[in-house]
This record gives sequence, structure tokens and C-alpha cells, in this order.
Amino acid sequence: MVSQTQPTLVAVIGIGLVGAEFVDQLLAQPKERFQIVSLSTSRVTLFNASGLDLSSNWRSVFQQTNAPTILSALLGELRALVEAGRKVVLVDNTSAENVANMYPNFLAAGVNVITPNKKAFSGEQKLFEDILAASEKSSARFLNESTVGAGLPIISTLKDLVGTGDEVTKIEGVFSGTMSYIFNNFSTSASGGPAFSSVVNVARDSGYTEPHPGDDLNGADVARKLTILSRTIPALRSALPEGYKSVETRSLVPKAIDGLATGSEFMSRLPEFDTEFDTLRAEAQKEGKVLRYVGVIDVEKGVIKASLEKYENTHAFATSLGGSDNIIMFHTKRYGARPLIVQGAGAGAAVTAMGVLSDLLKL
Amino acid sequence: MVSQTQPTLVAVIGIGLVGAEFVDQLLAQPKERFQIVSLSTSRVTLFNASGLDLSSNWRSVFQQTNAPTILSALLGELRALVEAGRKVVLVDNTSAENVANMYPNFLAAGVNVITPNKKAFSGEQKLFEDILAASEKSSARFLNESTVGAGLPIISTLKDLVGTGDEVTKIEGVFSGTMSYIFNNFSTSASGGPAFSSVVNVARDSGYTEPHPGDDLNGADVARKLTILSRTIPALRSALPEGYKSVETRSLVPKAIDGLATGSEFMSRLPEFDTEFDTLRAEAQKEGKVLRYVGVIDVEKGVIKASLEKYENTHAFATSLGGSDNIIMFHTKRYGARPLIVQGAGAGAAVTAMGVLSDLLKL
Repeated sequence: MVSQTQPTLVAVIGIGLVGAEFVDQLLAQPKERFQIVSLSTSRVTLFNASGLDLSSNWRSVFQQTNAPTILSALLGELRALVEAGRKVVLVDNTSAENVANMYPNFLAAGVNVITPNKKAFSGEQKLFEDILAASEKSSARFLNESTVGAGLPIISTLKDLVGTGDEVTKIEGVFSGTMSYIFNNFSTSASGGPAFSSVVNVARDSGYTEPHPGDDLNGADVARKLTILSRTIPALRSALPEGYKSVETRSLVPKAIDGLATGSEFMSRLPEFDTEFDTLRAEAQKEGKVLRYVGVIDVEKGVIKASLEKYENTHAFATSLGGSDNIIMFHTKRYGARPLIVQGAGAGAAVTAMGVLSDLLKL
Repeated sequence: MVSQTQPTLVAVIGIGLVGAEFVDQLLAQPKERFQIVSLSTSRVTLFNASGLDLSSNWRSVFQQTNAPTILSALLGELRALVEAGRKVVLVDNTSAENVANMYPNFLAAGVNVITPNKKAFSGEQKLFEDILAASEKSSARFLNESTVGAGLPIISTLKDLVGTGDEVTKIEGVFSGTMSYIFNNFSTSASGGPAFSSVVNVARDSGYTEPHPGDDLNGADVARKLTILSRTIPALRSALPEGYKSVETRSLVPKAIDGLATGSEFMSRLPEFDTEFDTLRAEAQKEGKVLRYVGVIDVEKGVIKASLEKYENTHAFATSLGGSDNIIMFHTKRYGARPLIVQGAGAGAAVTAMGVLSDLLKL
């Protein structure tokens, strides 16, 4: 039994799919460990410094608030709790930039930050450095396991490798569940296959893509994840000054329809480009290969790229992927001959919330 | 910067392959975090309550001691340090039963225990319960990540799944690097293949087996790992009263040569049984399958077994394993459709020591 006398106080921002699942999972934890002091959407906040009573139906309890969300006010409240000697954690389950921009302030105030929000760690170097500096100064920690691979142990594994003195030589993987689903179905060892646009269409109907599939196909999500991992590797900490924008990224959005405002417009034009994708697939098949949209961090060569690559039909990216699996291979000095591999669902509310809660339990 | 003012004190028992590598890795950590207070073999101990000076060549420094190792005396010294307010960790890099039996005493004294030694957690229920009780009472922790899969994140992943409220339905994997190597080479999707004894012979010559290969082929190592994982799953905490002996285990040691004292005797007789293994392989091949020695924990069916099983040629155990890889698949409620998979080298001094050091960094 940990000799901690008072529960950790948790402020939750964002109660959408992931956020709501997180609150459910958190409320199932032993009561004495955690106490939720606030719940926020971008519009309204329910706050109580002595802890919210969410024992009945927290969703209906939350409905009753109409106090506006003011992040600076929340920061002040949480700072006061830290100053009163409490352990306080901000859990940001949004993907909002304005919340991410305030992490340095929360950390400086001694508030720990846990989040699946990729924005802060994959943006400009300055924000990232500000976060590190604030955390170092106050000893408040930030944990973001679920920004890459959701609940899969990716960042923690990389931190363990680096922290124990191993040398990462290369990381290679399928980092986007959407891209995984699309290419697992579009490009297999069998010859031919469905039209690219039809696969994207099914993916969209099944909820595997963003409402506008261009937001997945442009590769930015993969570039963001590569940025987060790169910055965890000492040699690459400052390799991407503008964050994900500095990553060499191959967009799969055809130039002619880049910038179409709505997903449905985009989808109606996508079939025009099926022949191009057919050609790419046929070229790969001629070589006995499949297409996969991957992220690569080649530490030795200094290459960080999100790109469409060809892999032998016998490669794990061809044989062992299915559904919307992520797979990440760590090549290191210690794992020299054969890589350390982590694979599994890399998206979804339950597994993302689980990654967030794991971080909280580790704190 | 952690606001910890004094370094954590580390007592190391066992400086064989893993132990020596661990000391090397530990000495490469920032000096202010850890201080080694003792180094022990089964015979001699070098101890200094204010910290050993190992800055030059620790191996030659250690040569100079001839103080006998007395575990009860070490316990007393470490208890005194805990009572003086220090954080103390015993790192047991042996596979010794007498050290494992004393974990409850160390934990009761407030000494944290970290180890790759499978003995304590895979033995009788009583020792395991004594360890839990002592740890709970004193708040000293025990961590044993590297008992399963060496540096691979297996136990931590299982703890995260369980701790965040996921429900494990089944764990299935290749848990023995030796068995992995043997069957990856003995049974492939191609028809026929080398004689079983010749594969074991190469494995032995390459250092993949124990000096007596029967110690690998009897399945006990896999049964021990299954015990450790099972006890981490709430529903199975007490399912194996006698530990690994309670696991349904298929030994691959032919009855007629079970009990031969030396590895070389064993190896000279093993070819007599090649036909039996040939038959098993041919049967599998007829079904389009390969043989793999696996561990299975089927929580729903209540089955825990170490056994030789057949897997389709397209299964990950057939396609993506190589070398002496471990692969572990976690089937859970949240990872419902497709399992969470961890794969990589599951043995070797460098990766085992890394698992131990990771635990120490987490403490």
C-alpha cells in the first residue's frame, strides 16, 4: 500500500469519445487514489476544488454546468491546489492547439500534464523546449504515451531503450491506423485488387478516416508521430525545428483536389486518380512487393520521412498486418540482429484512454 | 530534475553475464542518481555503506574482496540504510533459489527488490504471497520485468492492461528463445527439413541452450514464465498453487533419456528420437502447418499450458519469427479483434540487463 495519504487530483479537459471513455475508466479505479476536480469541454467547465461528486451518472452531472471554460482561470485554481501541497494532473483529451500551447504554464505551476494530444510535442521546437524547461524547473511531469500507437507501449519502450543507454539506429513502422487499413486492403500479395477510391470509401464509411479523408491521406498525422519519437532520441532532439512540418512527407492527396473543403467533394473526385494508384500497385506487384504508408526514422542517415514504400511479400508489414493495426520496429544496438516489434490496434477510444490512464497510474 | 537529494542505493547480487552487464549499464547512468553499496557473488561480497568506488575498473576492485557472502548480514546492513532514511534496492541477477527465498525478508525491511530471477515468482504460492504481503506492508516494491522476454515490455504491458481495467482473455506466445530457435529451424513451411537432434546440436554449439539441453527441452522455463504472467492476472492469481509445477507442461525430453546427467550424454542419445520428431513435423506439414513450442494462458477456459502446437503457415508464429525471437500475443476485451503483440530477442545479457535497469529507473 502506497503511503500516500491524499488522492491525486485530476482535471480533465475534453470529454469527447476518448475523454468520456477515460473518465469511465478512471472512475472504475480505487476511489482513494484519484479525485476528479474538473471536467471541461471547450465551452463549459464543472469545477470543485474539493472534488466533484461523479458517483452517479457523471454525464448528467456535467450537463448542469454552464460556467464558461477559461483556461487561465483553471490554471489559477490548479496552481492553488499545488501550492496547498496536492498532487495535481491535467489530462488533456482534446486535440486543441490552444490547450497544448498552455502546457508550459501548467507545468511551471507544478501541474503534471498527461495527454494523447499530439499538437504540443509535434509542433515548433520552441513550444517543445518550453515544455521541457518548465517541467525540469518545477519537477512536474508530462507523459504522452498515447500520442503514438494509442495504448501500445511505444513511447515507454523508446524511453526505456534510450534511458538504459541503448542506441537506436532506426525506427520503421506503420503509424496510422487509417493508412494501415487502406493499404492492407488495397495492396496485398495477390495480383490486382480494388480501386483506391473504393477502399478509402469503405474506410470512411466504417469510421476509420477523419470526416475529410484528406486529413489522413496527407501524411501529417504520421509526420507528427515521427516528430514525437524523434525528439525522444537524444541525437534527433533538435532535428525538426518546425516539428512535423520539417518531416519529409509524401502526401497521397492528389494535387488537383488538394484544398477541397468537404470530405464528400473530395470523395467524389478521388476516383479520377484510381489509375495512378493502380500503376503504383502494379509496379510493386511486379517486384513481388506490397505498398505500405510508413514512417521511418533513420538515425544513422539522419532521415526522417513519412512515405509510401514497397515491402517484400514476405516482410512483416505485408504478412502480419490486418485491420487498422499499427506496427513499429525498433532497430537498436542491443536489438541488433532482429528488431524489437510492437503491434496492435493503434487507434480507438478504449485503447487511447487506456494509454492515458496508464500514464496516470505511472505518475 | 527530480527533487531527490540523495542517490538510490543499490546492492547487486550476482555478477555473471547478466550481472556484469547490468553493473556496466548502471555505471553509465548519471552519477547523482544511483550508488552501488555492494557487489556479491555466491561466495564473496564487497560492501561499503557509503558507496563503493567503482569509477576505475570495477572488476578488479571486486577481485580484492574476500569477505564471505552472508545474506542475513547483507539484509541487516541494508535494513540499517533504510532505517537511516535511504532508498535501497536489491538487484538479484542470480537464478539462485536461496536468494529468492529471502525476498520477503528484504521487502519487509523496506528494501526494494528488482530481478530477472524467475524462481520466487514461479515457485510455490506461499513464497509469492509472502512477497506480496511483505511488499504491501512495507511499501517496498518488487519489479521483475526481465523474468519474461528479458528487455521486452511484457510484464509492464500486462500490468498496464490489467491496471487500467482491461480484461485479458488469452495470452499466447513463444516464450523461450531456445525453443524459438530450435523450431524456427526445424519446422518451416517448406517440406522436410533437418533432423531434430542436429538443430539442437547447432543451438547448443551457438550458446542458445543450457549446457544440458534437457533443461530447455523439458518446458520448465516456459512454465515458469506462464506462472509469472498468470499471477499478474487477477482471475488466475491463485490458479497455480505449486507454481510452474502446476502448469500443464509437455516435455520434449524423450522418456528413455530423461535423467541423463550430462549434456553430452544427452546429445549423443538424442538422434535415436529423430524419427519421432520427423513424424510430428510431417503431420503438421500435411495440414499446411508448422510446429511451435508455445505457452498459452486461456483465461476463459482456465487452461495454462506449455506445449508443442501446430500453427498455419500464414500465422505470425510461422511467418514473422526468426533467430531466437520471443513473440507474445495479448488477447483482451479492448484488443478484441486483433491482439496486442510484442516481439523480439527474449534472451541475452545486454537486453536482460536492460530490463533490470529499466525497472530500476521506474522505481
